[in-house]
Amino acid sequence: MSQAAALTRRSRPLRTSAELSSVLATAYERIDRDQHRNCWIYVRPKEEALAEAEALARRSAQGELLPLLGVPFGVKDNIDVAGMPTSAACPSFAYVAERSAQCVERLVAAGAICLGKTNLDQFATGLSGARSPHGACPSAADDRYVAGGSSSGSAVAVAAGHVAFSLGTDTGGSGRVPAGFNGVIGIKPTVGLVSSRGLVPNCPTLDCPSIFCNSVTEGKLLLELIEGFDEADPYSREARGRSSAVPQEFRFGRISASQLNSFGLPECDALYEQACGRLVGLGGEALEIDFTPFAEAGEMLFSGPWIAERYAAISKLFDVDHGDLLEVTRKVLHSAAQFSAADAFAAQHRLLKLRRQVQLLFKQIDVLVVPTAPRPFTIADMLEDPVTLNTRLGHYSYSVNLLDLCAVALPNATLTSGMPMGVTLLAPAWHDHALLDFASRWQPDNDGALFGLNVYSRGVG
Amino acid sequence: MSQAAALTRRSRPLRTSAELSSVLATAYERIDRDQHRNCWIYVRPKEEALAEAEALARRSAQGELLPLLGVPFGVKDNIDVAGMPTSAACPSFAYVAERSAQCVERLVAAGAICLGKTNLDQFATGLSGARSPHGACPSAADDRYVAGGSSSGSAVAVAAGHVAFSLGTDTGGSGRVPAGFNGVIGIKPTVGLVSSRGLVPNCPTLDCPSIFCNSVTEGKLLLELIEGFDEADPYSREARGRSSAVPQEFRFGRISASQLNSFGLPECDALYEQACGRLVGLGGEALEIDFTPFAEAGEMLFSGPWIAERYAAISKLFDVDHGDLLEVTRKVLHSAAQFSAADAFAAQHRLLKLRRQVQLLFKQIDVLVVPTAPRPFTIADMLEDPVTLNTRLGHYSYSVNLLDLCAVALPNATLTSGMPMGVTLLAPAWHDHALLDFASRWQPDNDGALFGLNVYSRGVG
Repeated sequence: MSQAAALTRRSRPLRTSAELSSVLATAYERIDRDQHRNCWIYVRPKEEALAEAEALARRSAQGELLPLLGVPFGVKDNIDVAGMPTSAACPSFAYVAERSAQCVERLVAAGAICLGKTNLDQFATGLSGARSPHGACPSAADDRYVAGGSSSGSAVAVAAGHVAFSLGTDTGGSGRVPAGFNGVIGIKPTVGLVSSRGLVPNCPTLDCPSIFCNSVTEGKLLLELIEGFDEADPYSREARGRSSAVPQEFRFGRISASQLNSFGLPECDALYEQACGRLVGLGGEALEIDFTPFAEAGEMLFSGPWIAERYAAISKLFDVDHGDLLEVTRKVLHSAAQFSAADAFAAQHRLLKLRRQVQLLFKQIDVLVVPTAPRPFTIADMLEDPVTLNTRLGHYSYSVNLLDLCAVALPNATLTSGMPMGVTLLAPAWHDHALLDFASRWQPDNDGALFGLNVYSRGVG
Repeated sequence: MSQAAALTRRSRPLRTSAELSSVLATAYERIDRDQHRNCWIYVRPKEEALAEAEALARRSAQGELLPLLGVPFGVKDNIDVAGMPTSAACPSFAYVAERSAQCVERLVAAGAICLGKTNLDQFATGLSGARSPHGACPSAADDRYVAGGSSSGSAVAVAAGHVAFSLGTDTGGSGRVPAGFNGVIGIKPTVGLVSSRGLVPNCPTLDCPSIFCNSVTEGKLLLELIEGFDEADPYSREARGRSSAVPQEFRFGRISASQLNSFGLPECDALYEQACGRLVGLGGEALEIDFTPFAEAGEMLFSGPWIAERYAAISKLFDVDHGDLLEVTRKVLHSAAQFSAADAFAAQHRLLKLRRQVQLLFKQIDVLVVPTAPRPFTIADMLEDPVTLNTRLGHYSYSVNLLDLCAVALPNATLTSGMPMGVTLLAPAWHDHALLDFASRWQPDNDGALFGLNVYSRGVG
């Protein structure tokens, strides 16, 4: 019996058609109530979802094992769901997907029910959630603040209890920053561990699907369902065997106080210090690491040649000088023109050196902990200075895929403003499951129950 | 006991100081006699080599295990040997290396004696052996014809019996084409299997050291000595475990007659057909493969954005508009300017698709056999049209490193002109040793003896 099956049996998921309908009713009610959150770009007709639930209940009654039976989820609108429009938040780009992305197919095969497509920074270019023609997505905790992006709608949909989990994507923090600003868990797998077939490409060598959820156990089960080599996806990579567990007495890397930068909100740094203290309490010994190679790699994403990877991928799909492209997106993409092929190769050579540096660093530590984002910004501030503040949001996240790391973003604490702040645990490629097991020491599940049972019985802010 | 040690014991290498001196005397005599071959850029003073031989003999007498005791070898002049000048065939670039490349260090530690630095196409840019200020290197078989490049001198030095083996480098065929035109074995390992620390970079993500030798058993021993992950080399990669052996009844891929191209010398195609027949005789079943993805990938190396990788690497080391750069090299390098960073990324995306196609092809076959080069050209023809003919030489070899394959170039047969023609066996990355074991079915060792014993007792053309 697979771990997924074992977990599901233990948790006794929803079974009857009536139970499934009641969950869906709550979900649609909340989606309807929360239209001001700009969370969804496309909501699936309720009748369709109900019919699917009924069919699933029948199959389950006939003995079929459906580990995600009736669990509602949302999908970022740069991931294909068969029969639904994919727009990447650019209406003139929209098409109706004929086939679902592989990760969606796997979840649906496991019995989950997709309720629709969520809002995002257009073409996944941004970390704020305020770069969408469908409106800025505010944090579920405080609607003056950005939700973080680019997977803004997916994170908010989970935080606001619309769905039990959701899919996002991550290239430079899009699966982590919105987790942090909404107090949910964000899993950013090793690039290539989960097939990216069916994603709208962004920087294809750095893109990966990501997961937003409410418990580490759920996240682990979801990752187990969607991971695996896909020969139809040229960016899929064969995993290098599972890593060994993080020991009970572990070493963690932390950024020194002098290298922390919360861009004017020192309370954020204090919360990070608190998180490091908590890791010590969990049996960790702290090692101060040099953040310079991470910062240098991170700058390559938007201020260096990788902007040309984004341009190359998007301009192949879409005329970036026509249609509903936002001015800020257009401007960012056109900055690609300043880089030559020689610049790109020189930067790739430099990146390989930085990767090796970081790989050697991870021989000294089991995990590295960083703030998920330096600080929250208000939507008003973000709209006023969209490029500078966006870059600041990526300070701790941009480098992660470039350096071939996996990540789990976890809730940490709350600022006096009430905004949640997160920390992100990082480990080398292919250490995803060891990292998640470690994350469950930080964030033990409240009741061991999975999906729906906890989501739909708790209060929502 | 390692395989290397086992092999060496079996073969009873040269032992006494007198025996070692006699081998060196023969080597230096031949080097001296063959100055017209333009084989060497730097020859180590004979007294130095003799002193080293004496010291080695003493260490051996004291019981030290030196698997390559006293075996003379040559090193392509884009690989550092401590105390010798490295020039990459560009005198104004030359420097005296303080430390040897890792592969050289390993061979010297095993008791081999480096006799000097061999001629090459300048900055390893070319496949002819006719792009050097030290003169064109003719084939050891016929001095009207090119030796092939860029590792021309290394291949000729082995073919002409100056040394028992030599090191070359390979980016797009430089370790294979000259093996073919000189009737020796050329081993092109998986990129990243052998450290490239101490190589003059060319296309660093595609470069690797290569081996020229006279028997597959020798080549296997040499590879075993120099291979292995090197954390100091950012291009070194951790191997994915050894592959399983090619079965006795195997399937091999071959190019269909309609896709073969010998550029006007059909006799070459006939020799390839003969080689395929021989593989059938060895237990092989032929599968005709589509060469299109190989041809498409191959074009990216010089006619596509990878020329900018070469430009980026070389222009970082050397002012490509001043000094002793040949006009043809300068012209080739400057063609990099036409490619943007977006072009580079788009080509990399395309290459990943082609790699996957080829990876899937290798699920159907155990090895792929291709002509090492389409046909030989005379030095006179080559000098007259250096770019077009060079491209033709790379027809079957350019794509190999781009597609992440390993290769062994083997002697096949002789044209009526007397020129040797080779075939190259290809397998996916990390299958190096399985491929070499298979190659020994094609090319069984004559007497099982290693280094020196066979080289210095045979006649040299």
